[in-house]
Amino acid sequence: MNLILLTPDDLINPTQARLAGRRFRHIAEVLRPSEGGALTVGLQGGRIGEGRLVRMDRDSLVMDLRLDRDPPAPLPLTVVLALPRPKVLRRVLFSLTVLGVKRIILVNAARVEKSYWQSPFLHDDAVRRQLIMGLEQSRDTVMPDVLLRPLFKPFVQDELPIPAKDAVALVAHPGAAEPFPRSVVGPAVLVVGPEGGFIPYELEVLCSAGLKAVHLGDRIMNVETVLPALVSRLF
Amino acid sequence: MNLILLTPDDLINPTQARLAGRRFRHIAEVLRPSEGGALTVGLQGGRIGEGRLVRMDRDSLVMDLRLDRDPPAPLPLTVVLALPRPKVLRRVLFSLTVLGVKRIILVNAARVEKSYWQSPFLHDDAVRRQLIMGLEQSRDTVMPDVLLRPLFKPFVQDELPIPAKDAVALVAHPGAAEPFPRSVVGPAVLVVGPEGGFIPYELEVLCSAGLKAVHLGDRIMNVETVLPALVSRLF
Repeated sequence: MNLILLTPDDLINPTQARLAGRRFRHIAEVLRPSEGGALTVGLQGGRIGEGRLVRMDRDSLVMDLRLDRDPPAPLPLTVVLALPRPKVLRRVLFSLTVLGVKRIILVNAARVEKSYWQSPFLHDDAVRRQLIMGLEQSRDTVMPDVLLRPLFKPFVQDELPIPAKDAVALVAHPGAAEPFPRSVVGPAVLVVGPEGGFIPYELEVLCSAGLKAVHLGDRIMNVETVLPALVSRLF
Repeated sequence: MNLILLTPDDLINPTQARLAGRRFRHIAEVLRPSEGGALTVGLQGGRIGEGRLVRMDRDSLVMDLRLDRDPPAPLPLTVVLALPRPKVLRRVLFSLTVLGVKRIILVNAARVEKSYWQSPFLHDDAVRRQLIMGLEQSRDTVMPDVLLRPLFKPFVQDELPIPAKDAVALVAHPGAAEPFPRSVVGPAVLVVGPEGGFIPYELEVLCSAGLKAVHLGDRIMNVETVLPALVSRLF
């Protein structure tokens, strides 16, 4: 936990917060600040800064807040990802949040197993947990939006062209003719397929919607590895 | 398994292989090729190409091989990584192999927990398993070298300057003055610290050995996310 993420509910007045539960325990057992010791804190959706311990008892603590700087800049990137298997999904939500992606759209595809859509890891609470952990890791405060789109074609044809209109819009596809670009300026949309890739028809639908298929070399990468690799090439 | 990785022991003659065990089961149960159907295969340390199924019985199969192309180019990169906790280590070995890194050196650091060096995931067999899975994922055949260096300072002072001599040599450190470079030409050495970072003294030892401290922005990233991000910026 590199940042203690506060919600408005934690505030007892505009410059003090009281914490109990998971964050309290992490502070008391792992970070162990002395009285007056400073921790990096941030208000969800707002600024970051320092929290100084005022008092701590058995199950809660109070800190003085000085929130004086903005969180890291968000990436102007929408990631559209074929729904991965549940264990991978958790790590990917965490990792995309760490990277600073603020819009994540999970779509269906022919090679996505239907059962993945029933996973408890897709429930709001479970998704939210990964996003919060990602913010705590990367010292950010701005929650990403995570959207589910279980119908591939209507999503690509009716919804995807809108963010893609003024943006670089890429689909990462092993075997594509053009290489993945190195750094872009301005907003981008990045589409990544399932294990086994998009089927030719899906790729056709994506390209008709204005996306460009690009490759990252000869290697077939797993989704956890390829996402940070692609995002960090773009920005 | 995007490539069936063969060892010389699998060859019954220069153009035929017999497989049993894990790879046989994966082919029989997941890939299910028809007779004469082609699979992507590669010989460990050698070329890749096609394997055509000749016959399959209850616990083994025979395939004809045509190994006619080179595996993907290796990255001219040495990754030096403070030993992460065991679960993370497994994923990181897999991921670095997928990316094409061929030299991975695991070092000690002040913020590495001593117990990590006792992990069964550091045993040769366990390491090898992750590397093989990484090759199978990325359609490669060349095993990375993984070296353990439990003494930080002697390693950095006596051993590290040698690969770094003609190479770009970087230590990724949040808060460093210079940004991480975008693409390099030729060999590189990349040093990544533990969770919580290198302590100032370690950074000093690294910089005295000729490494340059560079940052990747304001975000503190976990090692699984930052490694693909850094590697894909460099190459």
